[in-house]
Amino acid sequence: MTPDTSLRVIARARAKTEHVAQVRNILSAFVEPTRRESGCLSYELLQNGSDPADFVFVEKWGNAAAEQAHFATRHVSIALQQLTGLLAAEPEICRYTVLQ
Amino acid sequence: MTPDTSLRVIARARAKTEHVAQVRNILSAFVEPTRRESGCLSYELLQNGSDPADFVFVEKWGNAAAEQAHFATRHVSIALQQLTGLLAAEPEICRYTVLQ
Repeated sequence: MTPDTSLRVIARARAKTEHVAQVRNILSAFVEPTRRESGCLSYELLQNGSDPADFVFVEKWGNAAAEQAHFATRHVSIALQQLTGLLAAEPEICRYTVLQ
Repeated sequence: MTPDTSLRVIARARAKTEHVAQVRNILSAFVEPTRRESGCLSYELLQNGSDPADFVFVEKWGNAAAEQAHFATRHVSIALQQLTGLLAAEPEICRYTVLQ
């Protein structure tokens, strides 16, 4: 089998308890434009079943350059502005390679 | 589009620095038997590109019962025994639903 050389990203955002619905809307609006970006192979938004303030993006990019270009897009810039004051902590963004 | 009702799991295991290679081998051996379990839709093992001690399973299960049954399998039992003393912390297992 050909090795999977895609870049995987797991990005976690924790909403302040009183802003869960608003954060959910902002993050949801962010999915479709990201999927249309060049080099975005898969992009999903998850919500923790037992802790609704915990949101996670599970991302698959063709290469690191595509993922970096993502941060220069207008929809990222808008979302970051909209999220100001709504998150309980800085988003945690971790980058992975596929072992198996 | 039909909503995706699969259960998603993100399970993180942090190896002690001196045991990264051994943990990698144990976790890698664990992937194929898990993929053969009933209700396992997708199961991937990732390693953090800038922090090799950080391993993550990204999992997709047909339902919660299938994911629970996973913990009663022989390969989970064996892996947990083999990992004794090799991890820097208890594994963190979080369960998610797909928003988008």
